[in-house]
Amino acid sequence: MAVYTQLANEEIAALIRTEYGLAELALAVGIAQGVENSNYLLELVDGQKFILTLYEKRVAAEDVPFFLGLMQHLAAKGLACPQPVARVNGSLFGKVAGRPAALVTFLPGKCRTRLDVAHCIGAGNALAQLHAAVGGFAGRRANSLSLAGWQAMFEKIEPRVDEIQPGMRQMIAHELGYLNEHWPEMAGLEQGIIHADLFPDNVFFDAHDRVSGVIDFYFACVDAFAYDLAITVNAWCFERDHAFNRTKAHALLAAYRKTRPLSDAERAALPVLVRGAALRFLLTRAHDMLFHEKSALVTPKDPAEYVRKLRFHQSVTDAGEYGI
Amino acid sequence: MAVYTQLANEEIAALIRTEYGLAELALAVGIAQGVENSNYLLELVDGQKFILTLYEKRVAAEDVPFFLGLMQHLAAKGLACPQPVARVNGSLFGKVAGRPAALVTFLPGKCRTRLDVAHCIGAGNALAQLHAAVGGFAGRRANSLSLAGWQAMFEKIEPRVDEIQPGMRQMIAHELGYLNEHWPEMAGLEQGIIHADLFPDNVFFDAHDRVSGVIDFYFACVDAFAYDLAITVNAWCFERDHAFNRTKAHALLAAYRKTRPLSDAERAALPVLVRGAALRFLLTRAHDMLFHEKSALVTPKDPAEYVRKLRFHQSVTDAGEYGI
Repeated sequence: MAVYTQLANEEIAALIRTEYGLAELALAVGIAQGVENSNYLLELVDGQKFILTLYEKRVAAEDVPFFLGLMQHLAAKGLACPQPVARVNGSLFGKVAGRPAALVTFLPGKCRTRLDVAHCIGAGNALAQLHAAVGGFAGRRANSLSLAGWQAMFEKIEPRVDEIQPGMRQMIAHELGYLNEHWPEMAGLEQGIIHADLFPDNVFFDAHDRVSGVIDFYFACVDAFAYDLAITVNAWCFERDHAFNRTKAHALLAAYRKTRPLSDAERAALPVLVRGAALRFLLTRAHDMLFHEKSALVTPKDPAEYVRKLRFHQSVTDAGEYGI
Repeated sequence: MAVYTQLANEEIAALIRTEYGLAELALAVGIAQGVENSNYLLELVDGQKFILTLYEKRVAAEDVPFFLGLMQHLAAKGLACPQPVARVNGSLFGKVAGRPAALVTFLPGKCRTRLDVAHCIGAGNALAQLHAAVGGFAGRRANSLSLAGWQAMFEKIEPRVDEIQPGMRQMIAHELGYLNEHWPEMAGLEQGIIHADLFPDNVFFDAHDRVSGVIDFYFACVDAFAYDLAITVNAWCFERDHAFNRTKAHALLAAYRKTRPLSDAERAALPVLVRGAALRFLLTRAHDMLFHEKSALVTPKDPAEYVRKLRFHQSVTDAGEYGI
């Protein structure tokens, strides 16, 4: 949970002019949405819009070049995503108020909170295009939030996690045991750079419900493409009451497979991958709820949502439930 | 300190279309700045910009018509301030997410954090124009934060105020005693609707350091114009190290008096009014620091700033210090 860095208008105007050689700043608005970084919407007098991001402590400074390089690579491949703007000195980033910071182009469109099947199709299609576009990018970043990372995070929250919901400790311990036993051999699943956080707030749509772009690459890392798909199914295919929506899952997976067909190993692994993906967000949300800074901008997200999703996946006996 | 109300993009788009009969929404961004209400910057596909404000609990629902009526009156008088947009049903406000809410026009320009004499002249001039423009507005709202209100607020925070800074309790008690004795007869000072919160973040400037508008009328009330001037002097004429800047005070007061000359009674009262105005912000900041909600968006402002301002005013023996 990021603490918000307040920048003075003059500071932003000087940055834009001096470091980026851009025109006069007309508007600078601190954006309340988003939990990881401090973001400002900037508009120049010529109407161009940008997002200025200050990477707060959850984003490691040494990872910033990877994230920005990835966005630059994807934009060059024609994917609609924010494009980092180089400073006059050629660098894609630099310090602002003591933090690593970058300027990226503003992406039109808006995320949706009420999702129908068309949006799920859009998400599946966007994820497949992303997986097709990462090829050739040389950057590498390990996934710190995979099986070993979950175990470490559980150890940190274990003494207090039942404060959130009684029985949570036992549920996580049991699930970690199951996953340790059943987690697929990753070498058998195609690896690449995954988004790892393709939630509905990170996919923008135009007025005709077509995907206009994907944002927030700050969890991107090397992992199995099918695991990214599992995260996305969890994020898009449950209703507000947390009931699983088969129709949406079928549609999302079919849209994905149209661009990137799944291997037999990926299809077989999906029921375990969605459990792991659910546990991953259960753990980080529980962690954020227990350890969030009081001065943080945004109230922590509810881990109970992922308890229910995980329970659903635990109950699934037939992989056909996921439409594969 | 307001808790931030999260609105879905679809909710905002539907509101704009249905309740306001406006064109397609292109952009909706929750604004991180500001402590009292939830604000969204909206842009339509035709480029028009608006601010959507949801009044959180610090603004009493029954006061909303007064605030919006005042802004409408001032805009009609040619003052650059946000102009409320009427709904298709003719009302200037309505409920959004259970809160009173209004749409106002977006004001170009940006507030400054580094203030020089030119900005102080702008502020003095803007305040005088505001005082000249409120005439003829029929709305009335009492100032709940005047002498009697300060006493009540002190009683609430008294048991804990020394937690913030030792000696604060005694200082406030002493100052309240002084003000009870020396507070001017209000009948002798010209009354009208005052802004009551003309801080630098509420005055926008264009690229040439000319005032482009005044915002945030949510403390406006009936009181002495000279008291509003005292609040403004406190807000604009101290340096970052809280040293009083005579040059700025002289310039601000001279700019004000060019449009609205001060009476003898107003000039005589100013040294006491700036003490009262300093105590008022000392009290509310101390209150907010002690009682702010943990889930609030913004960290409370430092009351110590106003302790130092008050100490300065207490030390002044010659009213010439203020340039009057």
